Amino acid sequence: MTASAPRAVLTATATDFRVQSWEPIDFTLRYVDGVFAPENPQVADLYRDRGRCLAIVDETVHGLYGDRMRAYFDHHRIPVTIVALRIAETAKSLRTLERIVDEFAAFGLLRTEPVLVVGGGLTTDVTGFACASYKRGTPYVRIPTTLIGLIDASVAMKVAVNHGKHKNRLGAFHASREVLLDFGFLATLPQPQVRNGLAEMVKIATVANAELFGVLEKYGEELLTTGFGHRDGTPELRETAHHAGYEAIRTMLELEHANLHELDLDRVIAFGHTWSPTLELAPDTPMLHGHAISIDMAFSATLAQRRGHVSAGERDRIHRLFSGLGLAVDSPLLTAELLTRATDSIVQTRGGLLRAAVPDPIGACRFLNDVTTTELADTLAAHKDLVTDLPTAVEGVAMWSRPA
Amino acid sequence: MTASAPRAVLTATATDFRVQSWEPIDFTLRYVDGVFAPENPQVADLYRDRGRCLAIVDETVHGLYGDRMRAYFDHHRIPVTIVALRIAETAKSLRTLERIVDEFAAFGLLRTEPVLVVGGGLTTDVTGFACASYKRGTPYVRIPTTLIGLIDASVAMKVAVNHGKHKNRLGAFHASREVLLDFGFLATLPQPQVRNGLAEMVKIATVANAELFGVLEKYGEELLTTGFGHRDGTPELRETAHHAGYEAIRTMLELEHANLHELDLDRVIAFGHTWSPTLELAPDTPMLHGHAISIDMAFSATLAQRRGHVSAGERDRIHRLFSGLGLAVDSPLLTAELLTRATDSIVQTRGGLLRAAVPDPIGACRFLNDVTTTELADTLAAHKDLVTDLPTAVEGVAMWSRPA
Ligand SMILES: NC(=O)c1ccc[n+]([C@@H]2O[C@H](COP(=O)([O-])OP(=O)(O)OC[C@H]3O[C@@H](n4cnc5c(N)ncnc54)[C@H](O)[C@@H]3O)[C@@H](O)[C@H]2O)c1
Ligand SMILES: NC(=O)c1ccc[n+]([C@@H]2O[C@H](COP(=O)([O-])OP(=O)(O)OC[C@H]3O[C@@H](n4cnc5c(N)ncnc54)[C@H](O)[C@@H]3O)[C@@H](O)[C@H]2O)c1
Repeated sequence: MTASAPRAVLTATATDFRVQSWEPIDFTLRYVDGVFAPENPQVADLYRDRGRCLAIVDETVHGLYGDRMRAYFDHHRIPVTIVALRIAETAKSLRTLERIVDEFAAFGLLRTEPVLVVGGGLTTDVTGFACASYKRGTPYVRIPTTLIGLIDASVAMKVAVNHGKHKNRLGAFHASREVLLDFGFLATLPQPQVRNGLAEMVKIATVANAELFGVLEKYGEELLTTGFGHRDGTPELRETAHHAGYEAIRTMLELEHANLHELDLDRVIAFGHTWSPTLELAPDTPMLHGHAISIDMAFSATLAQRRGHVSAGERDRIHRLFSGLGLAVDSPLLTAELLTRATDSIVQTRGGLLRAAVPDPIGACRFLNDVTTTELADTLAAHKDLVTDLPTAVEGVAMWSRPA
Repeated sequence: MTASAPRAVLTATATDFRVQSWEPIDFTLRYVDGVFAPENPQVADLYRDRGRCLAIVDETVHGLYGDRMRAYFDHHRIPVTIVALRIAETAKSLRTLERIVDEFAAFGLLRTEPVLVVGGGLTTDVTGFACASYKRGTPYVRIPTTLIGLIDASVAMKVAVNHGKHKNRLGAFHASREVLLDFGFLATLPQPQVRNGLAEMVKIATVANAELFGVLEKYGEELLTTGFGHRDGTPELRETAHHAGYEAIRTMLELEHANLHELDLDRVIAFGHTWSPTLELAPDTPMLHGHAISIDMAFSATLAQRRGHVSAGERDRIHRLFSGLGLAVDSPLLTAELLTRATDSIVQTRGGLLRAAVPDPIGACRFLNDVTTTELADTLAAHKDLVTDLPTAVEGVAMWSRPA
């Protein structure tokens, strides 16, 4: 810890008061192999002194790991209250947040008592927002159980619920005090969900970590089918999986730790998130996020090549990596009209500029602000031509999430 | 601005990541005489470049000042959308927050576009929480129109709504970028509401500003009856009123600007807020906050004298100041049983300690942690005896807020 502790300053004149201050943010992500194995003290250490623990747990995760969790707390003689929560994406709402808050109140949760949250991004986002709001800020500890959670949702300090038709419309920046990283949960995660997370991992590799890109080209499919080596994986594969996960998290933190409130709008990790927000909402059946961003990234690679930022060979490697993992690289829904509409919409949230992240080359990033409607249409035609023979040119594998 | 800009630090080891960072907070409170007088540029300056303004305004305030506001924006050729909001304390809820958020969406509010909020603490609290949550943080500008708003609610960065039976149960710390202070609004504020605000002003004087205490002893009643000199006040009284308001705000900021997130639980400004939270909720008809805290403070003064922190003369001056303003100094609801219950409850939210702020002497503060049930009962008996002849020993003037 080298940074100096900042101070608060009050300036008072005859007509004005000005307050300048800094809110300290301090959080840790910690690897634990088998977080609920009785011999591992990390969770117990967080709750032993309080003598009790309130845990909010994804319902499916509870079905799979609930007994193990209870045995863990029994072993450590810490009374635990487990609330199993069923949250579909459609119920990522203030109503669900209120249900959670009522559980806090029933438990008599103190303002300083950390809530344990176990599940994927849906569970950690809505419970995290409940914690952010409860008594204006209650601490929490996250144990992510999906690949999205492990390498993305729980790495950030954003939490949110949907409102009306708008995704993540209401939320907060509220870091969990600790994140306990146990990739062992991927043993039970359905393959479509692993694939969904891999899309975010390829994202960060493509624009910020060339070495990781190479690892994913070589081992991506094996990581997918073995749940990151936690289902019939060799020790070597497990080692590779650990390295890939570690690198994805480290790279994201390096890019984002000085921009936790997203005030800098030129965001490398927004690669794939320029046109996909509109695309994702276009179909009636919700599209899995990972496929929507993969289509955006594949298209962006074509654009980057036409601009001279990646070679044709690199572009094709990007397309093949997505496609080899079963991730979509194009869609009948991706039209010139949609691209124009998506551009207008994203520019509004990015302070008037497009800020489209593209690889330059693989492992590095540049932002494009001057993409015209004509260039979009021309690039799209070229893109459809290029990827037409790839197996996921029309649809990705298990691309549609079942409606809740 | 003398404080050094802090940095963000990422520490990565084989098993851990740690992020330390500081979120900058920067806000200004600015006096403007006649904030909607056409010749005053401050509001227009905030919205001219955007070419539009969304204003959320308390309904009563809108009835009184709506035409003036519209004329102001017309004069400056800035299109304004005014949403007049009726919020009773019972509707300080997530439902109302959602209504406000829907107005943001209908307006197409951008993440960087500050909402103008005009009204008392109720309006600024619920709209402030809507701004805190909308897109995880939207800026806002507050124009407080009540004395509570001017010297208390808009000085803090706390915002909240009630949930279930719990006051301010869900909320955030979200400073408004600017607060425009115009005490001219007090010309129309009903006297019971001015009295309510005066209770908070006497509070800060008693434990943190002896000079202000003297001013309020001398001019308090006149400030009350003239709406801080804005209703038939002489220029001299206006000057005194300005001084009192300025000192109240300055003192609160000095005490709180380094503790904006209330992590330090020894809070001088919590004087009067130790036993009053339980007292305020005791009756069926809600008690105006100002009276509840006045009873707490009057009782605390008796306690402080018995402990030797203030003289009997000072204690009596405190009692007489509240009572002279029509603020309650005792209540049939204040019983030894209630004091014990209130102690148990507040200790829970103050990290296991009582932390009762009391004057030591007038203008300074000390915290008591060792008050026993017996001392509470004995002090209460003595207190009832002492104040029995004061005019507000049983009930304050206009003490009950009408149910919404
Ligand atoms: N806060 C952020 O920065 C951020 C980042 C990315 C995504 N998100 C949000 O995360 C959400 C998506 O999260 P997600 O992809 O983790 O999905 P999810 O939480 O919906 O989980 C996916 C499915 O997997 C099941 N599941 C979870 N863990 C399991 C396990 N170990 N074994 C078996 N089944 C398991 C769940 O019950 C669910 O059915 C979205 O709402 C998105 O907005 C937030
Ligand atoms: N955030 C904080 O730190 C903080 C501090 C103190 C109080 N509060 C909150 O503030 C709320 C109370 O606020 P309040 O006391 O300002 O009450 P309020 O906002 O309810 O206003 C009181 C009444 O005065 C009317 N009114 C407002 N301005 C007027 C004017 N200029 N002329 C005529 N009528 C006017 C309103 O319509 C309302 O009927 C509570 O909910 C309390 O929890 C918050």
